Amino acid sequence: MSTTTATLEQQLAWIAVDWGSSNLRAWGLNEHDQVITQATSDKGMLSLKADEYEAELLRLVGDWLPTTGQTDVLVCGMAGARQGWLEAAYLPVPTRLDQLSQGAVTPTLSGDQLRVYLLPGLSQTRSTATHFDVMRGEETQLAGLVADSPDFTGLACLPGTHAKWATLKAGAVSGFSTYLTGELYQLLANKSVLRHSIGSDKLQDPVCRETFIAAVSEIYAAPETFSSRLFGLRAQDLLDGRLPTGDTRGAVLAARLSGLAIGLELAGACRECPTDKPIMLIGNQTLSQRYTLALNTIGHQAQHMDGDAAVLAGLRLAHQSLKAANC
Amino acid sequence: MSTTTATLEQQLAWIAVDWGSSNLRAWGLNEHDQVITQATSDKGMLSLKADEYEAELLRLVGDWLPTTGQTDVLVCGMAGARQGWLEAAYLPVPTRLDQLSQGAVTPTLSGDQLRVYLLPGLSQTRSTATHFDVMRGEETQLAGLVADSPDFTGLACLPGTHAKWATLKAGAVSGFSTYLTGELYQLLANKSVLRHSIGSDKLQDPVCRETFIAAVSEIYAAPETFSSRLFGLRAQDLLDGRLPTGDTRGAVLAARLSGLAIGLELAGACRECPTDKPIMLIGNQTLSQRYTLALNTIGHQAQHMDGDAAVLAGLRLAHQSLKAANC
Repeated sequence: MSTTTATLEQQLAWIAVDWGSSNLRAWGLNEHDQVITQATSDKGMLSLKADEYEAELLRLVGDWLPTTGQTDVLVCGMAGARQGWLEAAYLPVPTRLDQLSQGAVTPTLSGDQLRVYLLPGLSQTRSTATHFDVMRGEETQLAGLVADSPDFTGLACLPGTHAKWATLKAGAVSGFSTYLTGELYQLLANKSVLRHSIGSDKLQDPVCRETFIAAVSEIYAAPETFSSRLFGLRAQDLLDGRLPTGDTRGAVLAARLSGLAIGLELAGACRECPTDKPIMLIGNQTLSQRYTLALNTIGHQAQHMDGDAAVLAGLRLAHQSLKAANC
Repeated sequence: MSTTTATLEQQLAWIAVDWGSSNLRAWGLNEHDQVITQATSDKGMLSLKADEYEAELLRLVGDWLPTTGQTDVLVCGMAGARQGWLEAAYLPVPTRLDQLSQGAVTPTLSGDQLRVYLLPGLSQTRSTATHFDVMRGEETQLAGLVADSPDFTGLACLPGTHAKWATLKAGAVSGFSTYLTGELYQLLANKSVLRHSIGSDKLQDPVCRETFIAAVSEIYAAPETFSSRLFGLRAQDLLDGRLPTGDTRGAVLAARLSGLAIGLELAGACRECPTDKPIMLIGNQTLSQRYTLALNTIGHQAQHMDGDAAVLAGLRLAHQSLKAANC
């Protein structure tokens, strides 16, 4: 063990951290920006006060640190929110994704082993678009997308509780929209009158897959019917003699609800975007597969980038631009 | 007291009951169908087992009854649901509203003072429309609308947790849709990320009124943006320097959420209906005023019928047709 630690200390060049609302992930990287160690914790922003972040970070990465000198720590996500460690003010769009580090803030630390940079989120106001929006954490995943192609142009989607759609032009975010899709699904499935009908979704089941596709099509064609189709789902459970019984029944209705929620999102996000260029999905594989199926249903192609790989690539890009600025 | 009771017993001709999920209301009527007494209870369908209804009804109206003979009790609402007193199967649309009593069921009672008729709800299946739907209780309010004009043709809306829109043709319901509007509002205002921003709605405040109208217009014109405008509301709270402070801030954002939810409903319900005929709103005055404002915003006129008056008129109509059938 002591050999490994010694090697780690010698190799460690800097630390990347994705510090979200409910957990954090830290990676130790060498001078070639390769991951040599990693750690996770459930101490997200929601469970920490501002003066508890430094101790939590040291608890997690203290063993990685060399005995002398200062180690850079690049942090994205909710640690930079107003209610987090220290506020890194939103950068207004349009913002080049290779310049996020220009908005980083450095909290004052009690020790001198670390130099922490909290990266900013992005904001959009009525002066730059038709509606207000914010993101914090996702911008670093988007930066990961442009790390290998600095002038990337296209549409990117980050599925999730609050799904983000960003329009990228020559490496800059020109505008974005957040859809409440994941949260709407959870509220409706667990807290509304539909909870009596919704089971566990199983998209691999052919009948669920078919139901999901049909629901995406229906709501994409007529988004104004969203609210009535929600109640219709409950009525279908009461009236439709053709529905399967047992667990499959709840799974089919869950697939329908998922299709309605994602279809509404696509109706808002994809109506006016060209179909000749694939939409870049950034996130976990399961959710990205579901989105790919939905996008294919309405005539769009999709590519997938792993969410963890994206955030790490984005933090690398930010670290490189910080080093370049400090030279 | 004894004088009043004696008079009541002598006058009482029949009893009307609206038995919902969470409460019930009973009216005693004379032979001219005039209300001579009433009572309410919080023992709705959700708090009663099937064998507890008779006792609860007798507890509420027992003092009204004559010492001899049987009294008719006409009941609408959830008491006739499968999980209620006794199931009165849904009548499929199209159904004439003056013939609801043909689907009434009569539970077996332990005593012989009452003769109870549970009125049915209405159902719509894929064979009669594009989507499944059900109502139970609202059909009797709709019957109240046609009580004075048996061949009524037009569009009626019953605002609420699950708002109902019914197309009436010559006194029959030809189709209907339920919108989850009220439930969506409650879930989003109290359980979603928006709960941090939403206060008490005050539509009488001019700035709230203006915000409500703007939100209705926006979502009516672009219902596909519903989910992103929800998150935009949270972002606006974080970013918009022009928002008022204090209680008014939460009230303005509540008005916006209400406008988005109702505007989505109107986009689904009103897009293809003619503007030359007013839409009939059946419900309480506060909610009907809000819907009138929303309807006027999109170029529709509205008329209002009180919800209690409607249900009572519908129960009267059902009682008259029962009496006619029994002659």
